[in-house]
Amino acid sequence: MLTVYAFATPNSIKVPIALEELGLAYMLHGVNVRKGEQKAPEFLTLNPNGKVPVLVDAEAEGGRLVLTESAAILIHLAEKTGRLLPASGGARARVFEQLFFHASGLGPAFGQSGFFQRQAAEPQPLAIARFSAEAKRTLGVLDGVLARHPFVTGDDLTIADIAHFGWLWRREFAGVGFEDAPHVARWYDAMVSRPAVQRAIERVNALVPAA
Amino acid sequence: MLTVYAFATPNSIKVPIALEELGLAYMLHGVNVRKGEQKAPEFLTLNPNGKVPVLVDAEAEGGRLVLTESAAILIHLAEKTGRLLPASGGARARVFEQLFFHASGLGPAFGQSGFFQRQAAEPQPLAIARFSAEAKRTLGVLDGVLARHPFVTGDDLTIADIAHFGWLWRREFAGVGFEDAPHVARWYDAMVSRPAVQRAIERVNALVPAA
Repeated sequence: MLTVYAFATPNSIKVPIALEELGLAYMLHGVNVRKGEQKAPEFLTLNPNGKVPVLVDAEAEGGRLVLTESAAILIHLAEKTGRLLPASGGARARVFEQLFFHASGLGPAFGQSGFFQRQAAEPQPLAIARFSAEAKRTLGVLDGVLARHPFVTGDDLTIADIAHFGWLWRREFAGVGFEDAPHVARWYDAMVSRPAVQRAIERVNALVPAA
Repeated sequence: MLTVYAFATPNSIKVPIALEELGLAYMLHGVNVRKGEQKAPEFLTLNPNGKVPVLVDAEAEGGRLVLTESAAILIHLAEKTGRLLPASGGARARVFEQLFFHASGLGPAFGQSGFFQRQAAEPQPLAIARFSAEAKRTLGVLDGVLARHPFVTGDDLTIADIAHFGWLWRREFAGVGFEDAPHVARWYDAMVSRPAVQRAIERVNALVPAA
């Protein structure tokens, strides 16, 4: 049994996409981050870092595994199934490189850009400028990567594509568009057209209560 | 031949530490980030993202590999040697979890905390408060992890310890101390006492020109 604790967030969406692409059945539990449920005591027992997503794999090798960090979950699912991550060589290294470029670069830039544009209690002009520029810069770096091949690391879909999809799906929050990133735009259209991606979006959007 | 492009930075230091722990010989090339050399055209051909470290592995499986992102380099070196990363199971998943917690959480929080406290052109009080609090919060999460076992993921050193060491070595920049993180303090003392760690620090510090 695979259970995912998630919401309609950039990091959450990655896990259902991977599960749908891999054809694995899963239970999806909503954690309403708009109400702060990810900081509730019972959730902190699953993830002391207070963030979604969390995967509970009841039949992991060696016993029940409670795993946090969306990209670590993607690697676990890829290695569990032997899919979406090349087994060796430079192709494998490229996937890890892109997972960390997303986790440490593009993802935080998009997140902070959105926060300071939309949620900060007072304007912080230099912070807005800093993170807005960094979001556009990292998007440009990704555009250069996608200029060379159809998917992020080559000719085939990997978990690196799934990782990047999260924040690009939520790019409006960050105030970023694809005007200057034609290769990202082409890739995004291909990604969002995949039936597995559409099923995952539908499932996480259904976690959001009607306003 | 392994060649590392690096400087005395939180992310750079991880790669020489891993190489020293693994007993692998390497060439170390300084890239003076204080002078912006990481954004120079010749360096951008190695890493279009304009960041150190970069590893060039001339004898990688499948041919010469130019690899960026410090944690992706750590994984490459661990898988190349079969060391510092458990081969399977929950222990392996925990290493990836901590690599991404560092890359997406603790690392960016420390980096932005230092930037807004020390380098921003104008004070941004809310940004200082935000990132300073997040640096302390993530350090507290790590302290909880290290309360349970001697190293970050268990009884043995892994690349997750090496990843966390980078920013904890440079914690003064972030304005963070170990007053409220006794388990991190104990772990840091053990890490910095390792001969391999000391050799790596000496080698990257030697890249910094005398003032």
